[in-house]
Amino acid sequence: MGTAVSPLAPKSILALAPLPGVRLAALACGLRYLGRDDLMLAELAPGTTAAGVFTRSLTASAPVLWCREALAGGKARLLVVNSGNSNAFTGKAGVASVERTVAAAAKAVGCSRQEVFVASTGTIGVPLDDSKITAMLGDGIKQLSADGWQRASAAILTTDTYAKTATRSAKIGGVTVRINGFCKGAGMIAPDMATMLAYVFTDAAIPAPMLQELLKSGTDKSFNCITVDSDTSTSDTLMLFATGQTKHPAVTSPKDLGGFRRALNALLHDLAMQVVKDGEGATKFVEIRVSGAASRRAARTIGMSIANSPLVKTAVAGEDANWGRIVAAVGKAGEKADRDKLSIAIGGVQVAKNGQVAPGYDEAPVTAHMKGTDIVFEVDVGVGRGKCTVWTCDLTHAYIDINGSYRT
Amino acid sequence: MGTAVSPLAPKSILALAPLPGVRLAALACGLRYLGRDDLMLAELAPGTTAAGVFTRSLTASAPVLWCREALAGGKARLLVVNSGNSNAFTGKAGVASVERTVAAAAKAVGCSRQEVFVASTGTIGVPLDDSKITAMLGDGIKQLSADGWQRASAAILTTDTYAKTATRSAKIGGVTVRINGFCKGAGMIAPDMATMLAYVFTDAAIPAPMLQELLKSGTDKSFNCITVDSDTSTSDTLMLFATGQTKHPAVTSPKDLGGFRRALNALLHDLAMQVVKDGEGATKFVEIRVSGAASRRAARTIGMSIANSPLVKTAVAGEDANWGRIVAAVGKAGEKADRDKLSIAIGGVQVAKNGQVAPGYDEAPVTAHMKGTDIVFEVDVGVGRGKCTVWTCDLTHAYIDINGSYRT
Repeated sequence: MGTAVSPLAPKSILALAPLPGVRLAALACGLRYLGRDDLMLAELAPGTTAAGVFTRSLTASAPVLWCREALAGGKARLLVVNSGNSNAFTGKAGVASVERTVAAAAKAVGCSRQEVFVASTGTIGVPLDDSKITAMLGDGIKQLSADGWQRASAAILTTDTYAKTATRSAKIGGVTVRINGFCKGAGMIAPDMATMLAYVFTDAAIPAPMLQELLKSGTDKSFNCITVDSDTSTSDTLMLFATGQTKHPAVTSPKDLGGFRRALNALLHDLAMQVVKDGEGATKFVEIRVSGAASRRAARTIGMSIANSPLVKTAVAGEDANWGRIVAAVGKAGEKADRDKLSIAIGGVQVAKNGQVAPGYDEAPVTAHMKGTDIVFEVDVGVGRGKCTVWTCDLTHAYIDINGSYRT
Repeated sequence: MGTAVSPLAPKSILALAPLPGVRLAALACGLRYLGRDDLMLAELAPGTTAAGVFTRSLTASAPVLWCREALAGGKARLLVVNSGNSNAFTGKAGVASVERTVAAAAKAVGCSRQEVFVASTGTIGVPLDDSKITAMLGDGIKQLSADGWQRASAAILTTDTYAKTATRSAKIGGVTVRINGFCKGAGMIAPDMATMLAYVFTDAAIPAPMLQELLKSGTDKSFNCITVDSDTSTSDTLMLFATGQTKHPAVTSPKDLGGFRRALNALLHDLAMQVVKDGEGATKFVEIRVSGAASRRAARTIGMSIANSPLVKTAVAGEDANWGRIVAAVGKAGEKADRDKLSIAIGGVQVAKNGQVAPGYDEAPVTAHMKGTDIVFEVDVGVGRGKCTVWTCDLTHAYIDINGSYRT
């Protein structure tokens, strides 16, 4: 974890209450960090269904390749996550390391290997000494506890400055079920998937294919709409587990899950915003609402072009209402936009309209808005009805400090 | 111009010798800067042919739209360029401003409006007071001089820390012809076209369609392979003028221009490298040679993904041989790459091979290379024969200082 907590961090870290069917443990196995937990185990009750979305990187890590494959079974019993080393770009040695970890974990918990999911986050390209993980599995399983959420959510952090947790509840057939989630991520954040690692658990009983659909659609509006630095990780992993430990009328159709879907989407949004607010070096949180695009996809592309523009991000850091850079970012996105219908508002104040500065534009209230921590850009590109909101943070000196010396 | 000259700047600025058919003037018209030239005029001999390539931004500036249209005539007599205000995103007022400037210039020099080319560079979205330009045209034309290259090349600069000039010669039909060029650009540099503004002049006589083909193909390997910050300008303009004032055997086929093409390509490369070396805040020049890709286009996309990665660029700034970030950037490029055949060399030292760290890899010589100013990455993605080299610079605190307060 970084030393100074992000100025955008929540006032306090939410403590997660136990969730039927989930027990957690956190341990220090000494992979990279000294004096802190760097291994997280989550044990799931028999019958737990699983869903997952992963990085689209073509150089995905060995753990990601394993999870994609194991997910075909739709069941999960154990999650093994380490921080400090990503086991990415480690070749055949990395694959073997995953295989040994999974085999040892399956044996320790007494399940099939396909029910074990692994993840690794940290430096790329350094062989992972999995013996440090497997040596701790026995102890870890003994330490599993329904109250282990806080330490578990902290054990997976790397450059994060705070733990990211969220909880929601919903009703299925009149019965209340709950959802707990935590995640890590601060740099190398860009879709798809902009998370690094996120784990979400519910005590509901939901068949794996429905769980997968819920997760995918929820991701599209949350983690896939955030960016810190446009760099996509080789390890991004978001998984959702349903333990089925709270008894409710059986789910037979997606219609039974309307309330659950809303609660899940809210939780995913909550976690995604926490990732942006812990963006490396972030001092400002930026919401970019794009409308008037040819489609939602086009609106998202335009939004991401603005959100990833170093010139926009440095202007935000400098509290400069330099809306010309927003125009340039719209122009480079490659999606249809009508230069002469383009309009831009900052902090609710119309800045540009019909392709030029708004009549009687007064920069003072906009400058005042830019001095705050929550910045809102609204951009209408004037060609259609597609809209999408994306979120990012500013680009500051601290980002360069953090990333100019990450390994050293 | 910025205050501190880039540490990557050439030891001295090349002085350009007069070129038959070109006369230049530089004036201070007070558009934005005080006490420096901000208006450049270039008068071209009657019969001069013209070629140009322009930004692909969908929010291109009014001057770019004018030049694209005027270029259909293939002839040029006067070039009017101002710095300090880009006349971009200025709506109908911007278009009218270009029309008035062009009409006044055509009248002053006695040519058709289609032979006048304009460009504006500087802040976006501020209406351009063209009366300040037109009021100076008469004086400017009186001051035109064959020796005006130095002041002209300085008048178009904005955040640049040095003037960028280049010259070459070639033979056409046994007769020596020359090429002079200058350009500006330091930030908002990304294809297509990564230049902001560049003007190249030759005394050769070359028909406009051939001139256009020469320019386009030369651009693809130079200005379209550089990036500073991935931000594409609304004003990027590269023009090539052939005055025909040196008599040589008539050019009837592209074959007559082999030597000229080589000289032009070398000059364009020279200017493009000068832009990268003046990248805002740059302290390191980075050459990225991608090979083994599915095509040249794919290799370029992969190279640009590496060159635009904030994590790669901050690692370079921090002199950290963090090759894992190169792997991640290859992965996010979206082009075919074989993770298990990927190899990477830094400064000629094999770092990774067959998808993992190279056997016996010693980081010491690589770290020494990273401490220099000229960094070379070689990346083979192991799927084909496509190759491309791209160039960029590091991302430093100074970039943030420059861009957090550009307007204020």
